[in-house]
Amino acid sequence: MAKRNAFYAQSGGVTSVINASACGVIETCRANKDKIGTLYAGRNGIIGALHENLIDTSKETASAVASLKHTPGGAFGSCRYKMQNIDDNPAEYERLVEVFKAHNIGYFFYNGGGDSADTCLKVAQIAERMNYPIQAIHIPKTIDNDLPFTDCSPGFGSVAKYVAVSTKEASLDIASMAASSTKIFILEVMGRHAGWIAASGGLAAEQAGDPPHIIVFPEIPFVREEFIAKVDATVKEKGYCVVVASEGAKYADGALISGSLHKDAFGHQQLGGVAQTLASMVKHSLGHKYHYALSDYLQRSARHIASKTDVEQAYAVGRAAVEKALEGKHTIMVTIERGTGKKYSWSLGEASLAKVANVEKKMPRSFITKDGFGITDKAREYFQPLIVGEDYPPFKNGIPQYAKLKNILIDKKLKNGFEG
Amino acid sequence: MAKRNAFYAQSGGVTSVINASACGVIETCRANKDKIGTLYAGRNGIIGALHENLIDTSKETASAVASLKHTPGGAFGSCRYKMQNIDDNPAEYERLVEVFKAHNIGYFFYNGGGDSADTCLKVAQIAERMNYPIQAIHIPKTIDNDLPFTDCSPGFGSVAKYVAVSTKEASLDIASMAASSTKIFILEVMGRHAGWIAASGGLAAEQAGDPPHIIVFPEIPFVREEFIAKVDATVKEKGYCVVVASEGAKYADGALISGSLHKDAFGHQQLGGVAQTLASMVKHSLGHKYHYALSDYLQRSARHIASKTDVEQAYAVGRAAVEKALEGKHTIMVTIERGTGKKYSWSLGEASLAKVANVEKKMPRSFITKDGFGITDKAREYFQPLIVGEDYPPFKNGIPQYAKLKNILIDKKLKNGFEG
Repeated sequence: MAKRNAFYAQSGGVTSVINASACGVIETCRANKDKIGTLYAGRNGIIGALHENLIDTSKETASAVASLKHTPGGAFGSCRYKMQNIDDNPAEYERLVEVFKAHNIGYFFYNGGGDSADTCLKVAQIAERMNYPIQAIHIPKTIDNDLPFTDCSPGFGSVAKYVAVSTKEASLDIASMAASSTKIFILEVMGRHAGWIAASGGLAAEQAGDPPHIIVFPEIPFVREEFIAKVDATVKEKGYCVVVASEGAKYADGALISGSLHKDAFGHQQLGGVAQTLASMVKHSLGHKYHYALSDYLQRSARHIASKTDVEQAYAVGRAAVEKALEGKHTIMVTIERGTGKKYSWSLGEASLAKVANVEKKMPRSFITKDGFGITDKAREYFQPLIVGEDYPPFKNGIPQYAKLKNILIDKKLKNGFEG
Repeated sequence: MAKRNAFYAQSGGVTSVINASACGVIETCRANKDKIGTLYAGRNGIIGALHENLIDTSKETASAVASLKHTPGGAFGSCRYKMQNIDDNPAEYERLVEVFKAHNIGYFFYNGGGDSADTCLKVAQIAERMNYPIQAIHIPKTIDNDLPFTDCSPGFGSVAKYVAVSTKEASLDIASMAASSTKIFILEVMGRHAGWIAASGGLAAEQAGDPPHIIVFPEIPFVREEFIAKVDATVKEKGYCVVVASEGAKYADGALISGSLHKDAFGHQQLGGVAQTLASMVKHSLGHKYHYALSDYLQRSARHIASKTDVEQAYAVGRAAVEKALEGKHTIMVTIERGTGKKYSWSLGEASLAKVANVEKKMPRSFITKDGFGITDKAREYFQPLIVGEDYPPFKNGIPQYAKLKNILIDKKLKNGFEG
């Protein structure tokens, strides 16, 4: 059989290690030149495939490709693009197959989270329906850590490390100021639906009683009185209080804490943020001076403090996707499996895409302490190994040196464009 | 002459390297045991001296002291405590001298910014007036970089590095999302009166046109229309726009941008932050999706990404303070002097405290581009060397290992307490 080409795309919110997965895909394709033709990358994710904007990765030097392993962001561009329901708009999927046909693409590597797994599955299904053979393999990526069938999701470990390290550092700052100044510090972190990221802030505590003193989870209905009482007790005992709060934290009725207080001058409801709102509550109830930080994109792009474990796993799932394709596998997601020994170990596995798609892995309630404000030993056991190891990028003049790709688009072959 | 004891205290907002200065002071005192007795540290800064809460630093192991060099925050506690005017309340200063007398303290090392330099000067003056010989030496520290007579202030270089690195990383993130999602990213940084920190974000750009595309300085009166026009032009040209904004940015009439739009549910004016306010303006005027980050304490406590140059300078000014005291010097601030060669070099000098106190070093207008939104080559030349070099702390289980001091207080000798 003639060699067939491959397609790779990055999807959804990027991470500090999604390019490590890209690096794994590219290097493994290159190592198998006898079996795989050209690897094309979608410019801005799946949008690139729809519009036939295909980047020829063979134009990149080996060292540029290697530097992807330490470069945050999405080197080929990612996208937030929700493919329509296949039955409502099969044309969109048919267009993908049309583009793949035109470029003899036999491998579809899709690097993303839950929604992307669903897209990946549908690509496999429509290609089969259209009698176009393509091996669709999903490469897991999400800081939200909510993909099922995998012990963790590449991207999460590095955010967890960033949040734990930042919490620890800011805690030392506020501890030194509290006697005469700021007594409350709140760090707002990502996680709209689950508290995986907020929970990782708990790793900053090496001993019982260490900060953070309070974690505000989306899983636990927020009760203002209980929160204020805990802050008050903590300040009375420790002299200060450090809080890690998830952006998705909400009241029992489902109303988000964030944005619940603020309107801007134009009368728009402001997503004022959980940290700001909680700080405001504390000031109003207890009068303490506060500071809060909103790490936003910094947490998911902080490649300089990435977890080495996470980087290695991100690279490995990219490599495994290609290897599994070469073994003839398809319509799967590569997974990370945790060893059962006492010492942390991991290996790679796979899960059927049909089972993965549209399933969100929730954080177990057993990871959260009874009072709802902390993490349990069981959680610590799970999280701890994921942040282990540092993997610093190279620096020059004080600044990290990140990959600069050429990103050369190939000529289009299709006469008709795509009108999405 | 009998050996006299020494006193060291940390003052004002802490930094990721103020403990490196403490390390320099302690190690140099220990190296001169024949000349200097015990080094006491004030618990929570000058408040510790007023209340006779003196930490015996001789109880700390050599390795604990050495680990201060890589530990953020203020290991002995800092304070925001404004000493009253000496003529309004000489009793406060007299109390200090009384405590120093009781503990035979002949060296007063004070580690802080502009206000602290003033305190340090007044301690020297009142001691002289009271015929109590004490050598008062100020050790510079401020992330604001606004101390005069020194080329830079220890603490600043590390914040500058954090801001430059974070800006670079977040820029890669937004660049990959912009085609279909977020187009504006704003990073809010500290600096109430001067744009030194905001300017350092400009170091993220290695080539002309690289992000950040806009820096909002406190020095340049903010004109909303010009800002929006620049954002609009940048998005049209680059597809996205990265902004670094100083918390102290203001309109021509002096009104801060931050807090100008928000009231919380209790009707309190909210310090909503510059980033939030600017983002809101952009959304209103141009409709772009935005993200913003507020690094707050993270920027000044991020020891994991400290500048090696800054760490070395912070240690050196601590050491020099002790050495200069042993040379008989007093009523000075240790300064950092930049060599005149093309290659960056620095040495230590000193400035008279009388000249330093109450003088704020402004950022030169020549550091800001004509349009008011960027930094000039001259600025880049000044800033660049200050962020050079990495000096990672040791890690264990994925978390930096920071100093844990015993901080043992000595018995009080004075019968009367202090009522401040």
